[in-house]
Amino acid sequence: MQLGVIGLGRMGQIVVDRTLEAGHDVVAFDLDAEAVATAADAGADPAESMEDLVDRLGDGKRIWLMVPAGEAVDATLEELEPHLDADDVVVDGGNSYFEDSVRRAESCPAAYLDCGTSGGPAGAELGFSLMVGGPEWAYEELAPVFDAVATGPDGHERMGPAGSGHYVKMIHNGVEYALMQAYGEGFELLHEGRYDLDLESVASVWNNGAVIRSWLLELCEEAFREEGNDLGTVADRVEGGSTGTWTVQEALEQEVPLPLIYTALAERFGSRADDGRFSRRLANRLRYGFGRHEVPRRE
Amino acid sequence: MQLGVIGLGRMGQIVVDRTLEAGHDVVAFDLDAEAVATAADAGADPAESMEDLVDRLGDGKRIWLMVPAGEAVDATLEELEPHLDADDVVVDGGNSYFEDSVRRAESCPAAYLDCGTSGGPAGAELGFSLMVGGPEWAYEELAPVFDAVATGPDGHERMGPAGSGHYVKMIHNGVEYALMQAYGEGFELLHEGRYDLDLESVASVWNNGAVIRSWLLELCEEAFREEGNDLGTVADRVEGGSTGTWTVQEALEQEVPLPLIYTALAERFGSRADDGRFSRRLANRLRYGFGRHEVPRRE
Amino acid sequence: MQLGVIGLGRMGQIVVDRTLEAGHDVVAFDLDAEAVATAADAGADPAESMEDLVDRLGDGKRIWLMVPAGEAVDATLEELEPHLDADDVVVDGGNSYFEDSVRRAESCPAAYLDCGTSGGPAGAELGFSLMVGGPEWAYEELAPVFDAVATGPDGHERMGPAGSGHYVKMIHNGVEYALMQAYGEGFELLHEGRYDLDLESVASVWNNGAVIRSWLLELCEEAFREEGNDLGTVADRVEGGSTGTWTVQEALEQEVPLPLIYTALAERFGSRADDGRFSRRLANRLRYGFGRHEVPRRE
Amino acid sequence: MQLGVIGLGRMGQIVVDRTLEAGHDVVAFDLDAEAVATAADAGADPAESMEDLVDRLGDGKRIWLMVPAGEAVDATLEELEPHLDADDVVVDGGNSYFEDSVRRAESCPAAYLDCGTSGGPAGAELGFSLMVGGPEWAYEELAPVFDAVATGPDGHERMGPAGSGHYVKMIHNGVEYALMQAYGEGFELLHEGRYDLDLESVASVWNNGAVIRSWLLELCEEAFREEGNDLGTVADRVEGGSTGTWTVQEALEQEVPLPLIYTALAERFGSRADDGRFSRRLANRLRYGFGRHEVPRRE
Repeated sequence: MQLGVIGLGRMGQIVVDRTLEAGHDVVAFDLDAEAVATAADAGADPAESMEDLVDRLGDGKRIWLMVPAGEAVDATLEELEPHLDADDVVVDGGNSYFEDSVRRAESCPAAYLDCGTSGGPAGAELGFSLMVGGPEWAYEELAPVFDAVATGPDGHERMGPAGSGHYVKMIHNGVEYALMQAYGEGFELLHEGRYDLDLESVASVWNNGAVIRSWLLELCEEAFREEGNDLGTVADRVEGGSTGTWTVQEALEQEVPLPLIYTALAERFGSRADDGRFSRRLANRLRYGFGRHEVPRRE
Repeated sequence: MQLGVIGLGRMGQIVVDRTLEAGHDVVAFDLDAEAVATAADAGADPAESMEDLVDRLGDGKRIWLMVPAGEAVDATLEELEPHLDADDVVVDGGNSYFEDSVRRAESCPAAYLDCGTSGGPAGAELGFSLMVGGPEWAYEELAPVFDAVATGPDGHERMGPAGSGHYVKMIHNGVEYALMQAYGEGFELLHEGRYDLDLESVASVWNNGAVIRSWLLELCEEAFREEGNDLGTVADRVEGGSTGTWTVQEALEQEVPLPLIYTALAERFGSRADDGRFSRRLANRLRYGFGRHEVPRRE
Repeated sequence: MQLGVIGLGRMGQIVVDRTLEAGHDVVAFDLDAEAVATAADAGADPAESMEDLVDRLGDGKRIWLMVPAGEAVDATLEELEPHLDADDVVVDGGNSYFEDSVRRAESCPAAYLDCGTSGGPAGAELGFSLMVGGPEWAYEELAPVFDAVATGPDGHERMGPAGSGHYVKMIHNGVEYALMQAYGEGFELLHEGRYDLDLESVASVWNNGAVIRSWLLELCEEAFREEGNDLGTVADRVEGGSTGTWTVQEALEQEVPLPLIYTALAERFGSRADDGRFSRRLANRLRYGFGRHEVPRRE
Repeated sequence: MQLGVIGLGRMGQIVVDRTLEAGHDVVAFDLDAEAVATAADAGADPAESMEDLVDRLGDGKRIWLMVPAGEAVDATLEELEPHLDADDVVVDGGNSYFEDSVRRAESCPAAYLDCGTSGGPAGAELGFSLMVGGPEWAYEELAPVFDAVATGPDGHERMGPAGSGHYVKMIHNGVEYALMQAYGEGFELLHEGRYDLDLESVASVWNNGAVIRSWLLELCEEAFREEGNDLGTVADRVEGGSTGTWTVQEALEQEVPLPLIYTALAERFGSRADDGRFSRRLANRLRYGFGRHEVPRRE
């Protein structure tokens, strides 16, 4: 099979590499010429422009977009669409908002697959987990590429119609926030608690047979091994949050309670209050108001 | 009625003043001679020692303890107990742990009333809210004093047997934490949100007829009036937490969920993490682990 | 002053009554002729249609809408707008979403005031708390009516430009959810805890001088007095949630953490899971999976 | 090596089997003669009483207790202690409270190892994760048995002094509660959300390469495969909670915030409110109080 890949960042490059390794042909394009050159070194056919990429693919185009979620996807599609037909297939492998994917699937002349991609850089060797939404025939058609990019045939699945792939990925990320926070709470208590513990060793023994073993826990183990038992210089302001926010928004609409996922997201927001949390500052003044507790002051 | 008052801090002095104002006699003692002098200026009979105080009270002693919760109460009782009889009454008006009060009621030769006291310094003028536990006869006996110290006859009530007064006060304080945090969240959103609002004015209009009007909201209004719309130099590290902790511990035993009260308490704990929250720092390293998001570093 | 009032439900009728009591003239209209008759009995000039109401008002119209938030407001405005001029003033006293109010203010030919109204049925006697957004001149112009409908001059305030009144009311309601839940947690622990307590009595003594005294706590007292210590037949499925949902949505956009308000909202969602909470059911199956704890089954 | 095993429930039997398989000798005892017979069938030397077990072990006894946490451990130790010397080693492999383990280690004449054991029934084939506290020499001495019972040499580790093994296991379980709840929230939203999804398929594709893959997620997959997409007849009342409660209690003492672990625990408490949650019932009455929303009634 011949696959066009647009967007050659870290994730796009992995798609190129794994697709080539599986014996398929790849035509690669990125606005950054250096990224295209890297793909060419790996064996891809380098395209000079999106139009060039489309030309090289011929009929029955299969195109994988791996560009940042949001405007970049729309801009790419706008350029591609004049060249697309109903028997072409476009895969959006990025972290798009599912309602955008529904909208794009409706307006795209080609079959459109929204493909949630999870696994991070480790996916280079292991392959990704791919959650795919869109028409069944297009999913079947792309199966050989999905086999290559995913961990194998078990690493990809069609979730349902347009948008469902990114929907499942969105919720995956919401759960991810809560899992990270859950492990974080456990290790914070171990760290502050009454024993002097080696946290890498705790994580390691847990990863060998304990109920809570997981890939995230393996990353915890790596974190303590590489940063030390006190996490060295790692700061505590946590960025990010868009997929978590989407998850909570959807849960509000569905009236489904997500106390853990919400709290994990709110922790991030709280970590970014540079002037101190207003609610806590008010609490201090109220404690003075009713109990004459001294008001702590900023220096 | 004649009342002995031991412990003449801010709250004890209010007990002395309000009892005197109601036409009762007060014998006052404190380890700090200056505090005793202040009470004497207000019209109390100054005692030179606890033994002296006991001597001046004669039979059917009524003694109000307003000393810090914990060891000070036990130390005071140890000194008093040789002088107490079954027809004496001791009131503990401090913030004692209810199980300590149960224990003290069992061992004290006098009738023992545990009296949760709420209202803060504003109680000087308005009177307090008093939640009393212990024998009914002793509660009835002290009613004239409770009338004086409380806002009036409606401001005190016998909750039940020994410990119940401090039990109800403990839970009062747990609720207080959550109310403060609830208002804090609202004002934080108003402060960070999309309008440029005068928070004193918001609090004021809410205090005039809105569903959420309350005394704590009046204190919010005062806070913005006195500290300014940005709360000036008020810092965000929040101390305290013992009664909240007791409330959560009791709820764990009773298997009653207290998500708001717990979260309000945990907010205080979190505000004291001087090196940054460990859980957040781990989250940053995990985000690198699975997504190669740059790890923020402390300077 | 002459005021047109459209929408004569419980709240609209109170607006009519209080405005009349203050010596102003009222022209009243509702789709329900009976409601119009009630207003007429109270002294209002009954209108037969919206057009009729507009005709009776003459130039410099002042019109108060008290219709359900959402489509009813738009439908009313659509009918009114052909008759409105730049020197007319329309007040939306309902629970509208603030972004709708911004939009309406932009398109309305008259000056538009969004007016958050709090206080419930008790407002009939006490007056309401009114949070007003919109042009300053229009707010000043309506001040006499606001004085009458609110608790007095302190019971209304201009918060800022269009939308700010409903914005502040939205957050007021978010706080309200959390306060209700906070008191609920406290009384739940008192009810399930180790003493046999009279909850009306607890609420009463708290309302007399305690830090957490409030109007909501007075309603708690009323609840126990009227329903009994176990709340009799009151069920535990809690409806409502739109203003709380809006508050959380806005906080997500502003990246402000609202753990208590969110949790209080989520409690309502959780109370409506008729088939049991899916997350708990999964937890039971997982406990079997790793611990062979028997899976509880539905009958 | 020769190991005495006391307590032959599901977990104890696995200890026996894995120790035998590794070529060691086992003397087995349980109050239930049938359990002893099962162990004998597997190749263990059956003991008729605890004294008999002790006699068969000779000097340098190594004894593994796998009895229910609490009084059963104390009762067993009381019977064993007259027969124990300083060169004997007792392992408590159950779910004991860490402070009990500290106390037992102090009073036990033998070296005492507290050993948190995780992995559940799946450990029969894979081996367990063992977190061990106590004297280093005793841990080294037992290493061959730990190698056999754990997943191998990586599956056990000495955490620190007495109590640290059960301390780490306690916090492991706290994290476990939060992870279960986090997955539960995700699947609840997927189940109630806007797509008709096959949850087994979602879990399967996540377990193949996604960031949130874990053993618990494999159990989710199994749950949907065996119970169906709606979890069939599984009920939503969740029992258990002791290790989670201990974790939260310890965190209260250490002043470490655990919002997710607490909330996961509180969810269980809430699931058991047979008469409905009191806080929600009060909320309904308050909503009537301030908004005249109809009070829902129980049938």
